[in-house]
Amino acid sequence: MVHRGASGRPRRSGGTILGVDLGATNLRAALVDLEGRIVRRAAPEPVVDRRPAAVLAAIGRMARELDPDASAVGVGISVAAQVDAGGQHVRYAPNLGWQGVPVGRRLSRLLGVPVVLTNDARAATWAEWKLGRGRGCDQLFVLVVGTGVGGGAVVDGHWLSGSACAVGEIGHVTIVAGGRKCTCPNAGCLEAYAGGWAIAERAREAIRADPEAGEAVRRLAGSVDAVTSQTIALAAVRGDPLAVRLREQTAGYLADGAVSVVNAFNPELVLLVGGVVDSWPGIGRKLEGAARRRCQPPAANGVRIRRGALGSDAPLLGAALRAHVSIERGGTPGQRRTNV
Amino acid sequence: MVHRGASGRPRRSGGTILGVDLGATNLRAALVDLEGRIVRRAAPEPVVDRRPAAVLAAIGRMARELDPDASAVGVGISVAAQVDAGGQHVRYAPNLGWQGVPVGRRLSRLLGVPVVLTNDARAATWAEWKLGRGRGCDQLFVLVVGTGVGGGAVVDGHWLSGSACAVGEIGHVTIVAGGRKCTCPNAGCLEAYAGGWAIAERAREAIRADPEAGEAVRRLAGSVDAVTSQTIALAAVRGDPLAVRLREQTAGYLADGAVSVVNAFNPELVLLVGGVVDSWPGIGRKLEGAARRRCQPPAANGVRIRRGALGSDAPLLGAALRAHVSIERGGTPGQRRTNV
Repeated sequence: MVHRGASGRPRRSGGTILGVDLGATNLRAALVDLEGRIVRRAAPEPVVDRRPAAVLAAIGRMARELDPDASAVGVGISVAAQVDAGGQHVRYAPNLGWQGVPVGRRLSRLLGVPVVLTNDARAATWAEWKLGRGRGCDQLFVLVVGTGVGGGAVVDGHWLSGSACAVGEIGHVTIVAGGRKCTCPNAGCLEAYAGGWAIAERAREAIRADPEAGEAVRRLAGSVDAVTSQTIALAAVRGDPLAVRLREQTAGYLADGAVSVVNAFNPELVLLVGGVVDSWPGIGRKLEGAARRRCQPPAANGVRIRRGALGSDAPLLGAALRAHVSIERGGTPGQRRTNV
Repeated sequence: MVHRGASGRPRRSGGTILGVDLGATNLRAALVDLEGRIVRRAAPEPVVDRRPAAVLAAIGRMARELDPDASAVGVGISVAAQVDAGGQHVRYAPNLGWQGVPVGRRLSRLLGVPVVLTNDARAATWAEWKLGRGRGCDQLFVLVVGTGVGGGAVVDGHWLSGSACAVGEIGHVTIVAGGRKCTCPNAGCLEAYAGGWAIAERAREAIRADPEAGEAVRRLAGSVDAVTSQTIALAAVRGDPLAVRLREQTAGYLADGAVSVVNAFNPELVLLVGGVVDSWPGIGRKLEGAARRRCQPPAANGVRIRRGALGSDAPLLGAALRAHVSIERGGTPGQRRTNV
């Protein structure tokens, strides 16, 4: 990726960095210039074998494909996980089944350049703040609603990290005390109602409870077991009553979550990012209305809830730009914190 | 409070500042030295007449009583309200019934010194961070459970403010979707279950629903209408089954709140402050246990939940010290923000 000088220290020969988005189901990568423009994309790869060695080998292949002359200054990886403060270890990635994997060190050895990991929601927050719709907004919350629900916060101009780099895990605030079991150790979490996996689970339960009402949804998916949140999104657009009702309920849970975000973090702007909200026309307006009606007045007044500008590129771009900041500061590997 | 020089500008003649805690029911004040030690206290006064003019006159009387030779450099007021960024206006104080009251300007004119307002929970956070059990902890959340429920956060070493100086309003995160009506525009808030007023309300409902079970509590209070959260605290200590049950339920709601705080703000230390938790042995341990069991692993590991060290002085001390910071910077009145 970089040419090495006589001293053995990397010599920066180009103005690019690799961004990787390591999700539970897909691996995406792009070569990004240092202003955050995508230079070249790799074809996304499904994550079939989730073992670390297989995933790291796949990332290595994509890196070589994207950057055959090894010009990038490093690699930034967005991962659906909690990572350590130095951006080197995956501490906890329930959807990948990883715990304590030294991704940074292993991949850095493989590729010969610094590697920095960032939690996906916090990476998306960085990208929307630096490049996207949150540019110039120093009171920002990015609410990610995909398979899981997460978030990241910029408060008073600080991109927040927290004691375990986990500020903004809003998917795991309780919205229904004693409610549905989550994938985390808690119950009643926002994610357990509004995450993609939870929408699918609620849909399958509803169809099993009333097979007649769920007939159209089941037919669309092929079987009850194959129903996903995308099936519900599609069926809702077509006006299927069960899907419409599930969606309305999901909007209600997301409104509870948005009210909690605005009361807890007092942002000026909330940006919605992720598969569940991407395919949902009008959801921003709906949540903004709920926040303005239901939050404490000074926090409610003027709060805006919009869709992010970067779509599914946000985590990858944020991870790349954050990695660049860390590398510039010479803070990786083993740096104390990646926070500004 | 200060002697004025020939230029008419205040001349600082002493190393003290006045701290005032303006709650919905009581007014407390003390003269504080610039290291945060209390020099002299005024006798607390009940807030009988809540109109701004009456309250400001009472603060003026207390100030003259505490500081007859007018040596303090200014006044810091902690108020159960949302205040503006310059610390001059009460924007919204539901418990006082105030909206848009220019307390800073009016009191400053009356006393001849700068006056700076801070939200009570955020003031308590500042005090515990600078003087109390949170000293040296840069990942701190102070959870205030009194008549209302509030909070303040220090993340990555920054005492957070937010777009309307309202970060940390954790009393108004939804914990029971579609649940009990709150005093704010939302329903199902943590405060609507675990705030002092809500505990009393839940107790009165329980007694009315089952007068026999509530007999002892009713007798202790004198009448059903006179039952308060203190009645329940006292009856629970005496082993009254209804009070014990209500308390257990309240602990459950607070655990939901603590889990949300830890997942959202990722603190290393949560400090409990306020009347409801002050009179509750073992509540810190109970909430810490819940957070460690139920939060996302890296946030859960090692999180500590303790009682604050400053008791009911925290808001007053924090307001005084914050005011001193603002005055030192020459940023009041009319400064853009009080945040560091």
